Amino acid sequence: MRSELLRKDIESKSIIKVGGAFDVMSAKLVEFHGYDAIWAGSFAISATRAVPDASILTMTEFFDVASHMAEACKIPVIADCDTGYGGPSNVSHLVKKYENAGIAAICIEDKIFPKQNSLLENGQNDLISEKEFVAKIIAAKEAKQDKNFMVIARIEALISGVGMDEALKRATAYENAGADAILIHSKQKTPEEVFEFTELWKGTSPIVVVPTTYDSVTIDELISHKIKIVIHANQTLRAAYASMSRVLKQMVNSNSLSEVEEEISSMDDIFELQEMYQIKDKEKHLEQELKKLGYIN
Amino acid sequence: MRSELLRKDIESKSIIKVGGAFDVMSAKLVEFHGYDAIWAGSFAISATRAVPDASILTMTEFFDVASHMAEACKIPVIADCDTGYGGPSNVSHLVKKYENAGIAAICIEDKIFPKQNSLLENGQNDLISEKEFVAKIIAAKEAKQDKNFMVIARIEALISGVGMDEALKRATAYENAGADAILIHSKQKTPEEVFEFTELWKGTSPIVVVPTTYDSVTIDELISHKIKIVIHANQTLRAAYASMSRVLKQMVNSNSLSEVEEEISSMDDIFELQEMYQIKDKEKHLEQELKKLGYIN
Amino acid sequence: MRSELLRKDIESKSIIKVGGAFDVMSAKLVEFHGYDAIWAGSFAISATRAVPDASILTMTEFFDVASHMAEACKIPVIADCDTGYGGPSNVSHLVKKYENAGIAAICIEDKIFPKQNSLLENGQNDLISEKEFVAKIIAAKEAKQDKNFMVIARIEALISGVGMDEALKRATAYENAGADAILIHSKQKTPEEVFEFTELWKGTSPIVVVPTTYDSVTIDELISHKIKIVIHANQTLRAAYASMSRVLKQMVNSNSLSEVEEEISSMDDIFELQEMYQIKDKEKHLEQELKKLGYIN
Amino acid sequence: MRSELLRKDIESKSIIKVGGAFDVMSAKLVEFHGYDAIWAGSFAISATRAVPDASILTMTEFFDVASHMAEACKIPVIADCDTGYGGPSNVSHLVKKYENAGIAAICIEDKIFPKQNSLLENGQNDLISEKEFVAKIIAAKEAKQDKNFMVIARIEALISGVGMDEALKRATAYENAGADAILIHSKQKTPEEVFEFTELWKGTSPIVVVPTTYDSVTIDELISHKIKIVIHANQTLRAAYASMSRVLKQMVNSNSLSEVEEEISSMDDIFELQEMYQIKDKEKHLEQELKKLGYIN
Repeated sequence: MRSELLRKDIESKSIIKVGGAFDVMSAKLVEFHGYDAIWAGSFAISATRAVPDASILTMTEFFDVASHMAEACKIPVIADCDTGYGGPSNVSHLVKKYENAGIAAICIEDKIFPKQNSLLENGQNDLISEKEFVAKIIAAKEAKQDKNFMVIARIEALISGVGMDEALKRATAYENAGADAILIHSKQKTPEEVFEFTELWKGTSPIVVVPTTYDSVTIDELISHKIKIVIHANQTLRAAYASMSRVLKQMVNSNSLSEVEEEISSMDDIFELQEMYQIKDKEKHLEQELKKLGYIN
Repeated sequence: MRSELLRKDIESKSIIKVGGAFDVMSAKLVEFHGYDAIWAGSFAISATRAVPDASILTMTEFFDVASHMAEACKIPVIADCDTGYGGPSNVSHLVKKYENAGIAAICIEDKIFPKQNSLLENGQNDLISEKEFVAKIIAAKEAKQDKNFMVIARIEALISGVGMDEALKRATAYENAGADAILIHSKQKTPEEVFEFTELWKGTSPIVVVPTTYDSVTIDELISHKIKIVIHANQTLRAAYASMSRVLKQMVNSNSLSEVEEEISSMDDIFELQEMYQIKDKEKHLEQELKKLGYIN
Repeated sequence: MRSELLRKDIESKSIIKVGGAFDVMSAKLVEFHGYDAIWAGSFAISATRAVPDASILTMTEFFDVASHMAEACKIPVIADCDTGYGGPSNVSHLVKKYENAGIAAICIEDKIFPKQNSLLENGQNDLISEKEFVAKIIAAKEAKQDKNFMVIARIEALISGVGMDEALKRATAYENAGADAILIHSKQKTPEEVFEFTELWKGTSPIVVVPTTYDSVTIDELISHKIKIVIHANQTLRAAYASMSRVLKQMVNSNSLSEVEEEISSMDDIFELQEMYQIKDKEKHLEQELKKLGYIN
Repeated sequence: MRSELLRKDIESKSIIKVGGAFDVMSAKLVEFHGYDAIWAGSFAISATRAVPDASILTMTEFFDVASHMAEACKIPVIADCDTGYGGPSNVSHLVKKYENAGIAAICIEDKIFPKQNSLLENGQNDLISEKEFVAKIIAAKEAKQDKNFMVIARIEALISGVGMDEALKRATAYENAGADAILIHSKQKTPEEVFEFTELWKGTSPIVVVPTTYDSVTIDELISHKIKIVIHANQTLRAAYASMSRVLKQMVNSNSLSEVEEEISSMDDIFELQEMYQIKDKEKHLEQELKKLGYIN
């Protein structure tokens, strides 16, 4: 069980590194390069569909991506479930689906549905009441059947500007309601407010951060400030975007494809990712089985 | 109608450049950088799911990707439909679906189902009989309702090693059966056999090529050899793969995310792709409409 | 265009009869028996998945059903879109999808998301503000590209108990905002309050009703009370449920299947529905085409 | 595990009754009325989409239906997987998907892909070679991870007219290759040829039958002829079809809906199926939890 694996990693490692992915290929690369877990992020998945990160794609669409990752990868998948796509009944429904699909953890946040991306300038960041979000956490906790399945509560108080006290109060409330980890989100260029939170908070649940804006923070600083999980949420997507833009621009204007050769992987790299060669191995194995049964001489 | 747009481009341009894509983001980038059309390729789409390019994903799964592209992009989408996912009834069924979804063209190939990627060493490349493939082309032709919708017949005779005469014979047969264009595929390192084909063939349908292996061929050479459509099928995917690998390797081992800053696009690039700012514009517009109706002072 | 067909029917017929369906088979039967249009109802579709009619299924899941109906049927499909699955951006997104799929009309209602079925005893029936719902109607109106595509605004004021004046006020507000028809919903056992509404309302948009609870109302009464569209929303589902229950109970306890023969259709009926015989016809036609081309002697 | 449940039932019961279903509602009714397992049949599922039972729907579409049944029901689901949707690689891929989704068993048949319904007059019923089908069974056996997951091999030799000896030879070959049960199919009006098969066959695997055409055979006769599993494959669908036709015909012509009242279930029956009342119970429970935490007085 990958949910168990995630729990064990949290206990045994100084920090858990989670790499962002948006399809199975990127998820396999996150796994291959040694990350502890995969973040199936809504922002990145929405981007691959070229729709705003604003609750436009449905739970079904996000779920399909996350469950395909869980089918194909061995490390835990943590699914970004935005606001939970509705009320407590929706959260209850999704927890069953995600757990059944072998996903190790979900993350829900305390903004109003439909939400907007937290890093968008002048974005809509209103919070739902603490009571309403606590109700969602209780629904999630009661819906899960595997005790190791994790429900991560993401606090948007610092994003929405209601302040540190509210963030701390909510963190405690969410932990009491049954959240298995607390994600404290920030859009500052530096980690100060996040570190202030981790200093002041008295809870014992693992703390999760997404340092997209305060990207110069070091792993050592995170560890020394009691942060247990760090998510590199969207750099994978942004690397793909940048290189595709560059290569497409070059190709469309060039006289020959060989000009981009240096910038692209080999066909063989892709065949390996797809396990094309394993299909050939399986064919050989099948032939031998058919020989044993006398169908081939 | 984008099928009409594709037809007009074929008439008016010396060569049509088609860029490979595997999700809506890559399709939008193909469009943005000036390609004439988008290739929704099975190899690349299979790779994003990390399954072999061997008829493992279903028509439904390939269709979903291609139709999402057609929803989001303005230039024509050409959908790679492998062998047609079965016999003439399946081809008939898929033509209706793809045409309804606003896709401009489909491409089917004359290999046995389930197929394997044509560039795989020692891959399975057996052909179905000319008669069987002609039956599929007739089924496709009769199923389409928009006369501009294109059925591209892809010839695998050179890939499978049955020779030039067979390739020429099939090209003529497929054109007679109603194919709107002929894709002649080759896995040679140089374009000689493709050029031999275009010299010898007496047909009048537009000829399509995919110079993945003979990538040093120039656009000028293609034009001077009567080739009308060139597909850059999988370089987009391979660019994404290469950059994601590089950035993930760096990130997982680095002390801080800022080390990869140079290699990734800005958040703003992605917001623009997603039309996040249009959502803000629409919100403002909506407010003004509500003001006019007296709901806001 | 089926949206045009629906508009013409509204102009030319004394009343439009809409039959409820939950999959393509039931939709085809609605069409076959002479209904003017098909109602793709959320309550019935949720029932076929055995989940509560409480915004549990996603837009994607409802959309798939409605778009399959539109693919297979010739008469207009009217899609029940509950509350619009979010705010104005979600409504805008769904209108594009539904219109592209050949669906003729959508219906959205002014309850809070997530909603509960309007006929459930003690169900949750809180309304969103008039302003918020007007914003959704404007978003829908601006997203549609086919002028005949209809946006039906469903008023839940009588269901939620806020009274006739509120219902009338909202009907006018929704019409002014651009709704193409007004659905006035009621859970009374008699049509009095609905008739009171139609008498008092000064608007000119077609009025739609769903007489599930006041099922003894006659077509003549509806016509004489200025009602233009009547939806038989869920009787199809309930007929299927009742007969399946009866037949399964009998079969599981019987000694032989022949005991239920009277209660079930023939295999042939189903083959016809599926157009199995057309596949045979097409095969014969294909053979003749292949003969003409010399592939068969 | 429901696969274990199915295995135990086979050991302990004189015969296993399997009820056909095509969506979750019909599957829940099969379960409610006391069947031992649910048959997710391709013919019935194709009918609900009004497409021919001729490999038109894809594995994805059939899988979605079967996996939704497995999510919602407690008894085992047996999924009809036609010919396996391709070759050994496709079978290997599907076994992983179906097993992961909690489906207890799959059934594959030895006809050529694309197939046609076995009961269609003059249908296409060509068999693939024994060797090719054995290869699929080996692929299935090696892909499964839960030893109780069952692979049922369906023999079409009697349907295709190649005779009893071929049927017997194949049954033994399939059992040797690893099939967990043998489905012997027949389109005769009487059970003679099926009984001849069960008398002559020397294998030890459970025998499965689908007495659609020889529907007067009794349960006692089946048991006394060593048949272990009987599938009532499509009567549920045909009951739904018959009653919907009848009720729609009546409704569209009647002056009032109350005329069909006798023929349809109550709204309450459907609410119970959907567990609408459990949502109300959960809401109450949630309120109490919120009270305990001090959010409600």
